[in-house]
Amino acid sequence: MSRDARFEEQAQALGYRFDGEIKMGGNYVPLVRDGRHIYLSGQIPRVGDTVVVTGAAGAGASLADAQKAAKVCAMRALALLQRAVDSLDAVQSILRITVYVQSAPTFTQQSEVADGASEVLFAVLGDAGAHTRTSVGVLQLPKNATVEVDLIASVRA
Amino acid sequence: MSRDARFEEQAQALGYRFDGEIKMGGNYVPLVRDGRHIYLSGQIPRVGDTVVVTGAAGAGASLADAQKAAKVCAMRALALLQRAVDSLDAVQSILRITVYVQSAPTFTQQSEVADGASEVLFAVLGDAGAHTRTSVGVLQLPKNATVEVDLIASVRA
Amino acid sequence: MSRDARFEEQAQALGYRFDGEIKMGGNYVPLVRDGRHIYLSGQIPRVGDTVVVTGAAGAGASLADAQKAAKVCAMRALALLQRAVDSLDAVQSILRITVYVQSAPTFTQQSEVADGASEVLFAVLGDAGAHTRTSVGVLQLPKNATVEVDLIASVRA
Repeated sequence: MSRDARFEEQAQALGYRFDGEIKMGGNYVPLVRDGRHIYLSGQIPRVGDTVVVTGAAGAGASLADAQKAAKVCAMRALALLQRAVDSLDAVQSILRITVYVQSAPTFTQQSEVADGASEVLFAVLGDAGAHTRTSVGVLQLPKNATVEVDLIASVRA
Repeated sequence: MSRDARFEEQAQALGYRFDGEIKMGGNYVPLVRDGRHIYLSGQIPRVGDTVVVTGAAGAGASLADAQKAAKVCAMRALALLQRAVDSLDAVQSILRITVYVQSAPTFTQQSEVADGASEVLFAVLGDAGAHTRTSVGVLQLPKNATVEVDLIASVRA
Repeated sequence: MSRDARFEEQAQALGYRFDGEIKMGGNYVPLVRDGRHIYLSGQIPRVGDTVVVTGAAGAGASLADAQKAAKVCAMRALALLQRAVDSLDAVQSILRITVYVQSAPTFTQQSEVADGASEVLFAVLGDAGAHTRTSVGVLQLPKNATVEVDLIASVRA
């Protein structure tokens, strides 16, 4: 199965579509390409106009909610990559993701939340989905989102 | 108008000068150049010896205060770039900025705060100021600064 | 003295060994190499199975505790680099470290905490240890770690 087909499979499993406009807040761009590298802006779990998971992990949002949020962020990131390079088959590797988790003060499972994003990357990209990762617990995120993920990818020339 | 002239125009609009020493705290360097890429250390809104905007956005600092802080951080970043490559005309693109906003627990306008930094980049660099951005709400920042911004730029060889 | 010898010297001064398995949490890889660049995943101060410094700086952890945590994170990062390129003599420069400090609400010495990591880099790598740095105060970190550090390095071809 192609990576693009696996992307569709993941979208169906999540119950969301990622083929509309990928809306961004603010005065910047979703991605910048620099040679073989693509930098992606921080993605919150917005689908269309709605941020689908909000609140702090460990308080308003459960671990499972937060993992789903991380998956949606990763899917948005893949959707943006796909549009930039036509097919996800052009992705060579994911150099870095940073996963910011809006956390209750005693919530320490940021790594487990981030696994949601990592699983999507492996499921869609296979070995090319191997990535370095930093996950941290922050006080707040734009629009009260539970998770925000940014990413740097390397693509074929 | 040259980018360097637009930089001066922005400095005057903010009411600060960025031609003195750019003071850093701690045991590191303000920037590292690697080929065509320049990595800049995190900038807080320090002008001379004074951090000009402190406190949490949504508590001690208003949205407007925090936006001003983000502008000062971006101006410091541009001042450092300018010194490294002689003229801001040598900047090819801004690959990534990360905007850390010291936030009150219910403050969710980190993206609006970050727009302050983005506006400065577009005002000074024009199209080359287009950038990817991640904005998050953190609990504290060095010296109680309201905002911290770091940046990766690509410059002409 | 070679950098690898200085690394051993730092390990002895800290009282920890870094020659066993470098354990990671979660579904990702410790480092990704892309040409001359190596991206390292966020490191918490884990030695073997134990996170050796936990709690918020300024509350459960003192400034000195947090600085020690930052040193252990930096040593883990160097241990990973060493394994990837055989000898730390192959490191050309450290492009960026980001230092996340789990902070009490009024703790504003994130930069002083980060100095712990910076000191290790300079002590082991000498001039090649010069780096850009961003230090921020976050609400929580995986496994209640006091500090998390990630890093991008440039290595000889």
